[in-house]
Amino acid sequence: MAPTFLLFVGTFVHLPRTSPKASKALEIRQGALWVSTADGRIKGSDWSIFNEDDLSLFLRAKGWVISEDEFCCKSKTSVTIIRAREEQNEFFFPGFIDTHIHAPQYPNCGIFGSSTLLNWLSTYVFPMEASFGGSQSSAPPRAYMVYNQVVSRTLAHGTTFASYYGTIHVPATNLLATVCQKRGQRALIGRVCMDRKEKCPDYYRDCSAEESVKLTRDVIAHIRSIDPHGILVKAVVTPRFALSCTEKALTNLSRLANDSSPNLFIQTHIAENKQEVKDVESMYKMKYARVYDKFGLLTPRTILAHGVHLSSSEHKLIHERGAKIAHCPTSNSALTSGICPVRKVLDSGITVGLGTDVSGGYSPSILEVVRQACLVSRLLPAEECRDNCDRCQCERSNDEPSESSSGENTPAESSADQCEDRRSRKCYNPVLSVEEALYLATRGGAAAVNMANELGGFDIGMSWDAQLIQLGAFSPAGKYANGKGHIDIFGWEKWEEKIHKWVWNGDDRNVKGVWVAGKMVFGNRHAECK
Amino acid sequence: MAPTFLLFVGTFVHLPRTSPKASKALEIRQGALWVSTADGRIKGSDWSIFNEDDLSLFLRAKGWVISEDEFCCKSKTSVTIIRAREEQNEFFFPGFIDTHIHAPQYPNCGIFGSSTLLNWLSTYVFPMEASFGGSQSSAPPRAYMVYNQVVSRTLAHGTTFASYYGTIHVPATNLLATVCQKRGQRALIGRVCMDRKEKCPDYYRDCSAEESVKLTRDVIAHIRSIDPHGILVKAVVTPRFALSCTEKALTNLSRLANDSSPNLFIQTHIAENKQEVKDVESMYKMKYARVYDKFGLLTPRTILAHGVHLSSSEHKLIHERGAKIAHCPTSNSALTSGICPVRKVLDSGITVGLGTDVSGGYSPSILEVVRQACLVSRLLPAEECRDNCDRCQCERSNDEPSESSSGENTPAESSADQCEDRRSRKCYNPVLSVEEALYLATRGGAAAVNMANELGGFDIGMSWDAQLIQLGAFSPAGKYANGKGHIDIFGWEKWEEKIHKWVWNGDDRNVKGVWVAGKMVFGNRHAECK
Repeated sequence: MAPTFLLFVGTFVHLPRTSPKASKALEIRQGALWVSTADGRIKGSDWSIFNEDDLSLFLRAKGWVISEDEFCCKSKTSVTIIRAREEQNEFFFPGFIDTHIHAPQYPNCGIFGSSTLLNWLSTYVFPMEASFGGSQSSAPPRAYMVYNQVVSRTLAHGTTFASYYGTIHVPATNLLATVCQKRGQRALIGRVCMDRKEKCPDYYRDCSAEESVKLTRDVIAHIRSIDPHGILVKAVVTPRFALSCTEKALTNLSRLANDSSPNLFIQTHIAENKQEVKDVESMYKMKYARVYDKFGLLTPRTILAHGVHLSSSEHKLIHERGAKIAHCPTSNSALTSGICPVRKVLDSGITVGLGTDVSGGYSPSILEVVRQACLVSRLLPAEECRDNCDRCQCERSNDEPSESSSGENTPAESSADQCEDRRSRKCYNPVLSVEEALYLATRGGAAAVNMANELGGFDIGMSWDAQLIQLGAFSPAGKYANGKGHIDIFGWEKWEEKIHKWVWNGDDRNVKGVWVAGKMVFGNRHAECK
Repeated sequence: MAPTFLLFVGTFVHLPRTSPKASKALEIRQGALWVSTADGRIKGSDWSIFNEDDLSLFLRAKGWVISEDEFCCKSKTSVTIIRAREEQNEFFFPGFIDTHIHAPQYPNCGIFGSSTLLNWLSTYVFPMEASFGGSQSSAPPRAYMVYNQVVSRTLAHGTTFASYYGTIHVPATNLLATVCQKRGQRALIGRVCMDRKEKCPDYYRDCSAEESVKLTRDVIAHIRSIDPHGILVKAVVTPRFALSCTEKALTNLSRLANDSSPNLFIQTHIAENKQEVKDVESMYKMKYARVYDKFGLLTPRTILAHGVHLSSSEHKLIHERGAKIAHCPTSNSALTSGICPVRKVLDSGITVGLGTDVSGGYSPSILEVVRQACLVSRLLPAEECRDNCDRCQCERSNDEPSESSSGENTPAESSADQCEDRRSRKCYNPVLSVEEALYLATRGGAAAVNMANELGGFDIGMSWDAQLIQLGAFSPAGKYANGKGHIDIFGWEKWEEKIHKWVWNGDDRNVKGVWVAGKMVFGNRHAECK
């Protein structure tokens, strides 16, 4: 008999369900949380369980038996216990959501030289993507190898949901969908559309706008055949970006997305690089966001990658249309694209998720993106203004020694407060805290894919899409096991500090288990025992 | 009989010994290189050995026998073979040199909230450092634990040389020197001096300028007692920074360093943060670099950490005095200090090394610093000017598709060329290439500690301070061993691309062995067999 519940016991960390601006504190709870094995959803929690006696009493009160128990009988509810072990500094955390990743570019991670967007595309990206062609009916061996690898690796980094770009090829893109479904990763799968002759290479281009639409339909049909209700895998209409598509393709792809029932997601790139922005404005004679809006591509189901160089009026338009932004700082730094002013984007009301943008981004890890989101936000000048005052320059002069960092006030709060006091609440601080970046990686991403009620946290009723993080116990010098990562927890740290140590130095070694919809999709299945 | 030579066989990668500006290419060689076990120095190399037959012929021609050979006799030269295995994508690389790291702050890695320099010091740094006090004659248990850990961990990350700041405490600082010597890591060891009442907390301060000097002398005496010739460990005079020391302390510490025989190294901080710069200029009524120069602290044996906010005239002065700069980008981003314009510093002729600046920097890994050095350089505007033209603005508009990235030209070169063409060779590109950052991590660091002839490369006569890097063979999806890191080498990559993959996604898992002066100081000693 399969257990009725998975009973997770230990420390649970997530971001409370508030606006990202208010998410300055982690919610850290100890106790138990149970997930139905029937639907993978969180059915309840009890934060009064602190030790084994409590747990026994709890089980007795519920009338639950542990599934390995020899006295288990069908009349009783059985549970499997999965623990986050305190002595190994383990905790459960929501799965990461990668709102922008190019699956076929995975082998190019770390290979981009010192190039910038547009020449990087022709030198590294298009030749790699073109090699996923195969025959009309089947994907080439490379697609099997790379797509299995990228899905396995992202799962191993704790990514439970990924919004993938494939290539222009139907068999390979279909394969990507199948691999995600088989390996249990939630995904949006996009067949890339690019039909503009003068902007796409001859060897890698749709023959026509009609072909862009027809081949996208083929992929949609495949995805609906393997996952009719889109429980794990859904199709996403994917015009590469404004420069690479004809107006006809943009029109028809928009129609396809907006006329389908249910409506389809749309993903594309926007304002990644200054030269790209110039080229788009010169081609279409309007602002970048207006281009997509003109073709009906700015919808509440649209994920726009990057948004580094958008104007305030474009932020306003994107917010009005309900479109989302995938913030990709690893990529934006690596390709010298610049820094997306995330605070400004959030303040304009836009929903923001994080994206690895493999392989403009060098790493398939959202944790690395969390780090870089924090770091690049610390390099933005604190000079932007909420109230449009004239050249309001709040120098980041929260440098003075501050007495205020005890108590509830985090340093971020206190410096923002100082800043606001100084300038009559006209300036603000662009710095993203670790907590805010983790919010974007989980709740933010969930909202970006319109699943804020399903994913991104441990609220009752949500799906158990989660990771078990192991920081490890302190091992004396020279004896530590490399396998547990290179974080040292000395034992005196508060939980908040442990989480910060994880964010700054964690990696896939710290990911001990990953679940999607209550099903373990990565990790040692032996962990699933009492 | 101990072997006479260590014979390293496989792929060797280093940066050629040129100025960093010219170091745009890696030198990648295959063959064998031998190191004397007597002095740990590289005695020769042969780049014509490509297979086992070649190796046998080579050994026969030399008359060398493998030390495990049962026919080994004392009349013959014996060798131990250590291989970088091609099928595991292994290579030898020079050891990393960390020119700026605070050993006692290691437990705080990743703990800094969103604070900036001066409040971070009082909130996180001083309380941690103060806890290393112990008694007058012995260091507390924490110092044993932390110092063993930080030396082990940095060795495990490939750091063969570190310029450490300790605390104000003599026993703990002496212990740090002993630990480095025992574990075989080259180090400069500095007892931190800070005696200015109004700028240092009461609980963590030297009582007087005399005490600063006296206690520094005590540490120097200990270090000379354990390593009289400074082969591995040397003392470095360490005034914390201009704000924390009285003029008397700066004067006397300068005298101590410059009058000792041999002269002692000096290390301190400079122009890390704008508020700090303002405070220093307001206290001393002169530019920051002039303050140190006034007290005789700018010498060819001086390492200045950070240098984020220095003027051109200060660059000129530092260059004239022969002082060095430790570039610490992880720290500078994390603490919102800004970006050090490394290209400008290098162009002014100053020697630059890299520093982790643990724990302003969140990671003890110089490889992480290499990555961040590359990334932050990509966020600097390409607007600075060699020839002082008026507001010369070379927008980073090397974004146009470029045909030129085939052949020898790297993308960095071609984009720099474009830039120079556009502005009549008046502008330049601030972007550091992967190769340049690796140069700073090895040759640059070696020059910063005045050991350019000894360390940082694989030239004949140099010390074998090296790491064996293992990228691992491709493992099919879902089956890869976490222990080998999360880089995927698919098999079609060129060696240059493998190195780039290492830089962008490598970590301590990829460090299989580390040697200092020919002695293995980290790794599996079983690797030391044929």
